[in-house]
Amino acid sequence: MNTPITSAPPSRGPSEHEVRAQIVEAATEYFSRYGYEKTTVSDLAKEIGFSKAYIYKFFDSKQAIGEVICANRLAAIITTVNDAVEDAHSATEKFRRMFKALLASGSQLFFQDRKLYDIAAVAAASPWPSVRGYEERIRQLVSEIVLLGRETGEFERKTPLDEAANAIFLVMKPYFNPLLLQYNLDGAEEAALQLAGLVLRSLAP
Amino acid sequence: MNTPITSAPPSRGPSEHEVRAQIVEAATEYFSRYGYEKTTVSDLAKEIGFSKAYIYKFFDSKQAIGEVICANRLAAIITTVNDAVEDAHSATEKFRRMFKALLASGSQLFFQDRKLYDIAAVAAASPWPSVRGYEERIRQLVSEIVLLGRETGEFERKTPLDEAANAIFLVMKPYFNPLLLQYNLDGAEEAALQLAGLVLRSLAP
Repeated sequence: MNTPITSAPPSRGPSEHEVRAQIVEAATEYFSRYGYEKTTVSDLAKEIGFSKAYIYKFFDSKQAIGEVICANRLAAIITTVNDAVEDAHSATEKFRRMFKALLASGSQLFFQDRKLYDIAAVAAASPWPSVRGYEERIRQLVSEIVLLGRETGEFERKTPLDEAANAIFLVMKPYFNPLLLQYNLDGAEEAALQLAGLVLRSLAP
Repeated sequence: MNTPITSAPPSRGPSEHEVRAQIVEAATEYFSRYGYEKTTVSDLAKEIGFSKAYIYKFFDSKQAIGEVICANRLAAIITTVNDAVEDAHSATEKFRRMFKALLASGSQLFFQDRKLYDIAAVAAASPWPSVRGYEERIRQLVSEIVLLGRETGEFERKTPLDEAANAIFLVMKPYFNPLLLQYNLDGAEEAALQLAGLVLRSLAP
């Protein structure tokens, strides 16, 4: 009854989790240099020094690897947004910061890591589950902020919460969805400011 | 002093205006069948039975022909929108109708004349002057509706007019800009309704 069951003996070699992480790390590096579309699983296998068959033991396809990379990036954006929103003192301020942080994170990915941005754009076009999850998280955050503003009396309470939150989500979408953002980068900061103003006027009690 | 100067003698052959119209008509037909990107001026010349050099006497490039086709289509959309707005009895109703008509016209072009839609998408990516003019006209129409609503007391008057109008223009842009619309067609009608509601709440006095 005292047998430890949680950790495998070290002699078993790297865990599945470790191998997956290693593949994802190498793929992130490789995709960000050569692009997602142009890379094959064979290219990756050669780069890491694994056989193609070995990689397929851990991931069903190139897209499955891309999914994890994309999910990691989007999770990092959500963390940035949460951090930006957390210590704001009003729902109004939380909303402004959320919009600003979403645009800033997306633009940064676009301008500083263009080839990884391309994975996100492919992901948003399908859309992949990681993008659906990302968008769902943003919709939820909007909903939480609207609800908070209703509780503090900053925002009106007549519009059904789901409708108000979804409409705000739609206003912001061209600035956080990677597929759309690339077409909206010109003057995006000014646009986001004006749109945040419009949204806040729409929420006035 | 009695010499008529307004009409050319019939023996002079078709006027420049007529030849241009003939080229545009044939090109519209040809592009809508084979696509704008894949067609060359040589293809067009062969189809119409003109020499390539003769076409170049009237248009500097394929894009110059595409510009006229695009401008014609966008002008038709603006006419549809103006008609939809004209007999509405309030600024609120005018705004709702404008948004609805813009989305309907754009979707119709996308679904019924996909290859011509592609010209509009190319035009919006650059953007061509025809698209700039189209967007300017929409911005102006928004401005006129907001101003009317301020005069009738339907809308608030605190926000600077340009800022209010531009923010509304930005909210609608994913639904009237051909480059963006193709990514926003899923659930676009419901989205446009919800966004119109949000915009109208933002305009409440």
